[in-house]
Amino acid sequence: MLEALLYPKTVAVIGASRTPGKVGHAILSNLIKGGFRGTILPVNPTTHEMMGLPCYADPGAAGVEVDLSIIVVPPKAVLDAIRRSAAAGVKAVAVITAGFKEVGEDGARLEHEMAALCRDKGLRLLGPNCLGLINTENRMNASFAVQTPKPGRISVISQSGALCTAILDWSMGRGVGLAKLISIGNKADLSEIDLLAALAEDEQTRVIACYLESITAGDEFIRVAESVASVKPVVILKAGTTAAGGKAASSHTGSLAGADIAYGAAFRRAGVVRADDFESLFDYAMALAMQPLPKGDNVAVITNAGGPGIMAADAIETRGLKVQPLHHEISSSLKEKLPAAASVGNPIDVLGDADPDRYAIALDAALDDTSVDGIVVILTPQAMSKPAETARAVIQRIRGTKPVLAAFMGGADVLPARDEFVAANLPDYPAPERAVAALKAMCDYAAWRRRPPRVVTRFPVNRRRVERVLSRMARSGRFEVGEADAKEILRAYDFNVPPGQIARDAEEAVAVADRVGYPVAMKIVSPDIIHKSDFGGVRLGLSNAGQVLDAFDLMMVRIARRAPEAKLTGVYIERMCKPGREVILGMHRDPQFGPMLMFGLGGIFVEVMKDVSFHLAPITQEEAMEMLMGTRSYALLKGARGQGAVDLGGIAGALQRISQLATDFPRIVEMDINPFIVGEVGTQPVVADARLTLAEAS
Amino acid sequence: MLEALLYPKTVAVIGASRTPGKVGHAILSNLIKGGFRGTILPVNPTTHEMMGLPCYADPGAAGVEVDLSIIVVPPKAVLDAIRRSAAAGVKAVAVITAGFKEVGEDGARLEHEMAALCRDKGLRLLGPNCLGLINTENRMNASFAVQTPKPGRISVISQSGALCTAILDWSMGRGVGLAKLISIGNKADLSEIDLLAALAEDEQTRVIACYLESITAGDEFIRVAESVASVKPVVILKAGTTAAGGKAASSHTGSLAGADIAYGAAFRRAGVVRADDFESLFDYAMALAMQPLPKGDNVAVITNAGGPGIMAADAIETRGLKVQPLHHEISSSLKEKLPAAASVGNPIDVLGDADPDRYAIALDAALDDTSVDGIVVILTPQAMSKPAETARAVIQRIRGTKPVLAAFMGGADVLPARDEFVAANLPDYPAPERAVAALKAMCDYAAWRRRPPRVVTRFPVNRRRVERVLSRMARSGRFEVGEADAKEILRAYDFNVPPGQIARDAEEAVAVADRVGYPVAMKIVSPDIIHKSDFGGVRLGLSNAGQVLDAFDLMMVRIARRAPEAKLTGVYIERMCKPGREVILGMHRDPQFGPMLMFGLGGIFVEVMKDVSFHLAPITQEEAMEMLMGTRSYALLKGARGQGAVDLGGIAGALQRISQLATDFPRIVEMDINPFIVGEVGTQPVVADARLTLAEAS
Repeated sequence: MLEALLYPKTVAVIGASRTPGKVGHAILSNLIKGGFRGTILPVNPTTHEMMGLPCYADPGAAGVEVDLSIIVVPPKAVLDAIRRSAAAGVKAVAVITAGFKEVGEDGARLEHEMAALCRDKGLRLLGPNCLGLINTENRMNASFAVQTPKPGRISVISQSGALCTAILDWSMGRGVGLAKLISIGNKADLSEIDLLAALAEDEQTRVIACYLESITAGDEFIRVAESVASVKPVVILKAGTTAAGGKAASSHTGSLAGADIAYGAAFRRAGVVRADDFESLFDYAMALAMQPLPKGDNVAVITNAGGPGIMAADAIETRGLKVQPLHHEISSSLKEKLPAAASVGNPIDVLGDADPDRYAIALDAALDDTSVDGIVVILTPQAMSKPAETARAVIQRIRGTKPVLAAFMGGADVLPARDEFVAANLPDYPAPERAVAALKAMCDYAAWRRRPPRVVTRFPVNRRRVERVLSRMARSGRFEVGEADAKEILRAYDFNVPPGQIARDAEEAVAVADRVGYPVAMKIVSPDIIHKSDFGGVRLGLSNAGQVLDAFDLMMVRIARRAPEAKLTGVYIERMCKPGREVILGMHRDPQFGPMLMFGLGGIFVEVMKDVSFHLAPITQEEAMEMLMGTRSYALLKGARGQGAVDLGGIAGALQRISQLATDFPRIVEMDINPFIVGEVGTQPVVADARLTLAEAS
Repeated sequence: MLEALLYPKTVAVIGASRTPGKVGHAILSNLIKGGFRGTILPVNPTTHEMMGLPCYADPGAAGVEVDLSIIVVPPKAVLDAIRRSAAAGVKAVAVITAGFKEVGEDGARLEHEMAALCRDKGLRLLGPNCLGLINTENRMNASFAVQTPKPGRISVISQSGALCTAILDWSMGRGVGLAKLISIGNKADLSEIDLLAALAEDEQTRVIACYLESITAGDEFIRVAESVASVKPVVILKAGTTAAGGKAASSHTGSLAGADIAYGAAFRRAGVVRADDFESLFDYAMALAMQPLPKGDNVAVITNAGGPGIMAADAIETRGLKVQPLHHEISSSLKEKLPAAASVGNPIDVLGDADPDRYAIALDAALDDTSVDGIVVILTPQAMSKPAETARAVIQRIRGTKPVLAAFMGGADVLPARDEFVAANLPDYPAPERAVAALKAMCDYAAWRRRPPRVVTRFPVNRRRVERVLSRMARSGRFEVGEADAKEILRAYDFNVPPGQIARDAEEAVAVADRVGYPVAMKIVSPDIIHKSDFGGVRLGLSNAGQVLDAFDLMMVRIARRAPEAKLTGVYIERMCKPGREVILGMHRDPQFGPMLMFGLGGIFVEVMKDVSFHLAPITQEEAMEMLMGTRSYALLKGARGQGAVDLGGIAGALQRISQLATDFPRIVEMDINPFIVGEVGTQPVVADARLTLAEAS
């Protein structure tokens, strides 16, 4: 996949230049100096030779088959460069040139034309407005970066070209190699999705580290990312989430799911390891690229200093991992081998004067102990410490059975040790807390890899009935589905809805009430009134015909006064629900990732405490239960303060049905069941009120 | 203060050695090689000369006045070394030797003797079991660390000697100087409190950075730390909080305050900047030592790369700081000076090809803009970037009026810039998020420095009446104060308690009920029953004499059955409270920091949602209000879901009275008012139930 882009045999540089400082010069020079294992073809009509290579006016003029064009000509000349590339048999182009979508409408138009032309000619397009790409395997530095990294196991996809320069400089400084580095620029054609898929198949790539500012095609992203993450870890730093996130948490339950929550849900589903800041991105990528995955979350700490051992233990506990003592037999045997003052608990303190041997002995013990899942080795450079020798001793002992991460603290004294570690594929961090954070990322990813297969239950439902309601709405040009219609839709998906019906006048209201049985609720039905109770449009617990008559007349008078413009269809009469625990079930179609389900306890729990949980549809039964457990108020559902447990399975089932409904009908963009009334196990949970919103464009 | 320890003219090294690898050799050699500006006196009975200096058998033998002894002899010889130091006129000793409290009881005894001897002889004692101390001002490296730092503005107090070696190595590597570095070891005499006080007066010290595992004398710590923090920033990394923190949040409200919460409350009170991990400790200390404090929380970001600018903006928003656009005039004028593609919003994007001049222009604009309180300058090393020159341009422009922090990202390419920055006292961080975190720490500290003077209201109360109740409890050997006595105590502190009285039999119960007025509550009174309702010992809403008679007899029968061993005093009859919002007020005496007040909404808000806030007593009215606002459920108190606001001032006043009661009577170790019933403004909040626990040893 993307063979022509990543493994070309011949690369044309259209706009190559011999003037230092020009981008066309930097790229040509990088290709040559990087030692590209293929043919380099400078293209520039003004000369026949450039930097010792024959130079042509056209990529087709050399008479060889060209696989990839790197295009660095001015924006207006790009289309022609693509055309000539196509004519020369090129299969992929990387457009470095900037001045497209990012500068305004004219640029966007040109970019659109460029993408269409590439599609038309059967070319794949990287960029425009990108730094280019680097593949250390075939030594292709087709970028204008200043440096060429050494080969390694991490591949980078970056939506910021400038960030690539910092990444390369870091990579050189730390001695951490890279497999591929791809700057995706404006993503006119190739996006993070295509490159994730390509790198999944790349043998050199053990981990994919991405810096993204936007995600193209959310559901496809999830699908591809999930399949890639099943093969190798994908670590993503998603920037620019807060401004959008700040708009979340409005009064409406659906919009509680802000962009940041949506990204969180999407990444969780897809098994993407999320990095919260720049340092984490490579902290995690290094650990995942260099060490095996942990089988559990019990961490052993080996240290020559008490303080940093405590810091590590604090970080382990804070992040939800465990620091358990070593197995008794192992700690007894370790005790005999270490000085009396050493501590063989966990952390294992090998003392300030520890030599490399003492570290080796402790590491062997932790590796032998089957209850230990991961190991953090800490060193502070004390008078007797030999950091580099200790690093070598640690490297010699590791077995590839469980992850070992180092935190050799300090500066110049530990630098040689750091270099030894990196060269031996053992990640090293400047502070214990960062090693622990990386280990936690590994544990989470390992747990995701171990997850049972996801089975989404499909319930037998009456889709036709829903289609009928939606068609009716569409014909009348309405997008807000009120209680009566919403309940009809939910009935079709086998929700338990109290018996009820619309009545157009007082007599009909009494007739319906007599039929469904008292006590009844009466709620106004009007396409113009969404928040019924704000207008006095809800009356509960009417227990006889007289009360129904009174309520009807009063409601009509008052609503006519408060909302004189509202068109009134009538009232909805239904039997009162039995009391129970009120919960809110919601769905909000995220513009990126599709239907996002919401769950929370009713009233103040959602509105004041913001105690809600989210999950992307489609959802499995286990995931629905996780949504319940994901709220702090879950304890109340399980039974607390003298109340018994409510029917948790009933709530989970309802979430699954909403998931199915949202998946079946993309026109539904929002849905609230509020409240959904749940009783004890054995009772039937009931939809007390509901509303839906449809997309305006069908 | 501590002149003899920090600024000695003559230092004796008792146990000096000429054998490399020995601690006594390392210390002597460090003093000599460090260039100590004073007299060094090796003390060792086996020789007359050591490393070119005259060596004596006794510190008094040289015939000069000795100020400080560094003691490195074996544990059993330490007391003698102290005695001989005292005889030679020494005023301070630093005991490097280990093998005391940390190895068990014998060691603890010896340490105790040592401290007593020092007290007796009027000597101050640092250690034992420490690395020693370094003062770069008089070039005294009286430690066995391998390195001597260069002079700087940060002083370090560390409870881990080994960590000092990592700090020194980091300091050398980063080129960040230190003023003093003091390893406090077992703290047999001098503790962090003494050293904080001493360093507050030290002109070389601009910031004190502490690594602490325990804190000696919590209330004195708060007092001293608060006074030091009023002069210069104190940054503390407190390790070892999680194991204890895990024990918190039990069912009992008082013990919701775990150790970590107590440290948090203490640090907040004292204005201590808390570092959550090792890197933050020096990230924050560097910023505070090198740059002026911000006047507000609006941050301008200058960057040559979009991605890192977004990362900074994300971090600014996430941490609660602000990214506002520049003032219109300033951005217009900036727009004219920068290339058209540059962005003059905030972040200010000076573009990938920015030269030092462009950074200087943008920095001038941000410095000119009075709405900007702090500035983060980001650079990624792109083809045209000149990191070191840019650093110099930035350094030349800063005015010392607002903090400027740098995040020059990458490795080798930006290293020269980092060195320039540190040399010019401009902190530089490897990633934007870390610069922002440091700026946030500065903002918080600046806000604390700007806080209004704390005025703790003293209410007129009846202390005598409380003393009488407590004496009565003491005489009967009881420590659990039940409802009736607790309410009497609270009445004495002017709490509003419903009229009520203990009744010993049914007739008396009716008489009391008749007097206080119906409806009444009846609650069992027994020193053996704390949780009254668990035993059927609470009956509410009794509305006439007959119901009181029935309830009394039933309660006696049932309790006799359920708790046959309980001694029953009678029942407490009181008038029912008017309904209102139920809140919980608590106090728990933290073993370190004293009375910790707690506030939360009643019932599930505390028990399920753990939505509580804490503050150390004594508390001001503002702080009491902050406690209310510190809970998520505060919105409910302010009025939500159709209910009006409750009497917030009444709750704040109650917290202040509890604060006064807890301060006045140290014997009270726990207190719960649960529920405290609060109505609308203008009503009187009422103590519905209360209990206290007294210390067993008076």
